[in-house]
Amino acid sequence: MKLTWETFTIRAKHPFKISRSVKQNVERVWVRVTADGLEGWGEAAPSRYYGETAATVVSALEQMQPVIEGAGDPDRLETLERDLEAAIRHNGSARAAVSAALHDLVGKNAGLPLWKLWGLDPAEAPLSSFTIGLDEPDVVRQKVVEAAEYPILKVKLGTDRDEEILSTICDAASPDTVIRVDANAAWTAREAIDRIAMLADYGVEFVEQPLQPVDREGYRFLHGRSALPIIADESCIDTASIQGLVGLVDGINIKLSKCGGPREALRMIHAARACGLSVMMGCMLESSLGISPAAHLASLLDYADLDGAALLAEDPFAGPGLVGAAIEVGDAPGLGVKKA
Amino acid sequence: MKLTWETFTIRAKHPFKISRSVKQNVERVWVRVTADGLEGWGEAAPSRYYGETAATVVSALEQMQPVIEGAGDPDRLETLERDLEAAIRHNGSARAAVSAALHDLVGKNAGLPLWKLWGLDPAEAPLSSFTIGLDEPDVVRQKVVEAAEYPILKVKLGTDRDEEILSTICDAASPDTVIRVDANAAWTAREAIDRIAMLADYGVEFVEQPLQPVDREGYRFLHGRSALPIIADESCIDTASIQGLVGLVDGINIKLSKCGGPREALRMIHAARACGLSVMMGCMLESSLGISPAAHLASLLDYADLDGAALLAEDPFAGPGLVGAAIEVGDAPGLGVKKA
Repeated sequence: MKLTWETFTIRAKHPFKISRSVKQNVERVWVRVTADGLEGWGEAAPSRYYGETAATVVSALEQMQPVIEGAGDPDRLETLERDLEAAIRHNGSARAAVSAALHDLVGKNAGLPLWKLWGLDPAEAPLSSFTIGLDEPDVVRQKVVEAAEYPILKVKLGTDRDEEILSTICDAASPDTVIRVDANAAWTAREAIDRIAMLADYGVEFVEQPLQPVDREGYRFLHGRSALPIIADESCIDTASIQGLVGLVDGINIKLSKCGGPREALRMIHAARACGLSVMMGCMLESSLGISPAAHLASLLDYADLDGAALLAEDPFAGPGLVGAAIEVGDAPGLGVKKA
Repeated sequence: MKLTWETFTIRAKHPFKISRSVKQNVERVWVRVTADGLEGWGEAAPSRYYGETAATVVSALEQMQPVIEGAGDPDRLETLERDLEAAIRHNGSARAAVSAALHDLVGKNAGLPLWKLWGLDPAEAPLSSFTIGLDEPDVVRQKVVEAAEYPILKVKLGTDRDEEILSTICDAASPDTVIRVDANAAWTAREAIDRIAMLADYGVEFVEQPLQPVDREGYRFLHGRSALPIIADESCIDTASIQGLVGLVDGINIKLSKCGGPREALRMIHAARACGLSVMMGCMLESSLGISPAAHLASLLDYADLDGAALLAEDPFAGPGLVGAAIEVGDAPGLGVKKA
């Protein structure tokens, strides 16, 4: 097998602002694994929050290259991914891209779309939310109007103008729009109690990552006192995070770029359910290629937030992902992704 | 799809005695699902301990029949198994047989052995233990001599002659034989402390199910005081059991006939690992057909006890299972099982 890659840039329609950062042009890495004339694809969406850039992705891919090139075929994915992790730890987005490419290749070899390889039913996928980043009230109002086709909005909060933003969104949205909030670790536990009570008054469904990931005592304090269910995002990296979240939160937000790919995501889904946690899957700003493995898994989720490609000005790939708020996958083998 | 079945009898070489029962001839149910000219097979190994007989299996199959016959194809296994569980709860061995047959069919459709469908590497499977049932010392000694090709013995205890039996086995076995003990829920927590200290003196590796499943306080008392790791068998039915065992035991023994099939077994493996529990897979007295799904999964296990067919006087099926203590699967699609 051969592993190759190239870096490309995607551009968000609007500057994408959350409590700690703002982005519009971001670098992604298109990863390809070839074997026997077939090509498997994956996308790395590095996150500065986890210490990743396109350059660290490329360095991680260089570490993984001999493992891929030494493996005869992609069939023994379980072992191969363990060997890849032994070659380079962490670097979730690079490992996720290689895992996606290997699964794409296995699916293409078998002539099966990934959802079918996994025995899933795409018709059971929940609708995806669409994210409204932080912005001035006028811009936020305009974004909500543009997002009219999405019945679930995920609202980024975590500033001193949270109520003003939320109130603007609730005014602009249709009355039956479901609203979820992501505070991206911006609050302390004591602040969170009041803020979440305010969110509950606005009919918000749940709140994601109110506190810093290190603030375990804060989560313990909040659990049972919070007016809304709490979903862990930055606090939940991979399977190893899950047991420690029991009694602290109500659910987890899995991202391929955190956990290292669809195989680990499947493990996380089963582990979270066994621990009584609800399961959400999120994404980064990424193309349809990056979104596609999550789209194949979506029927196993309680909540989906797979709008990464829908937020782009232009999508360099075409394949599984959102059609409106619906998650569509199709019947093409593997990931089913093509160049746009 | 069509679901059919027939009952058959298998006979153990020796009467198979554990702390609460003795068996030699047992009824099993051969389950077949047919679709598009292909046939998927499974075996139900009902357990009286869980209230099952061949007759209850047949009744459960009758409940599942309309669900199978109403499903267009076996591809959406996740949904189909949930619908089957909605049609008839519990009845693990009947559901396991149908799950095995559906996975056999999916593997045959894809032209892939199940280990390959799951991306596993059969070369990583641990060796299986071989079980020595309770018996008179002379018979036990003879069984150990006959089991010379197995480097790991699993010894059934839970009588007032435990030390005599164990000492007989240790005398008769090669000095580097690994010995595991299964008490089948025969002890109280206070008895267990001393018995397990005695087992540790004989170099036993771990002990399975020392206490009654209901005795959660006993397990809590034993945990940290036991001289050996404790594996839960009767205490661990399916994924829902796992979170409650954290802090009580060190590992779980998964059986297809308890949990309802290979799909749930995979979920259990991931959930147990996420909870820091080691993973064993066991079996019933059953033919190679019954053993085969576990054999395909075996590379994910820490400990395997898949000797059900090796204990038989005659095996009506041929396929994946033990070759000596090694777990072999081969490359035939699906389960890869034929009539012997």
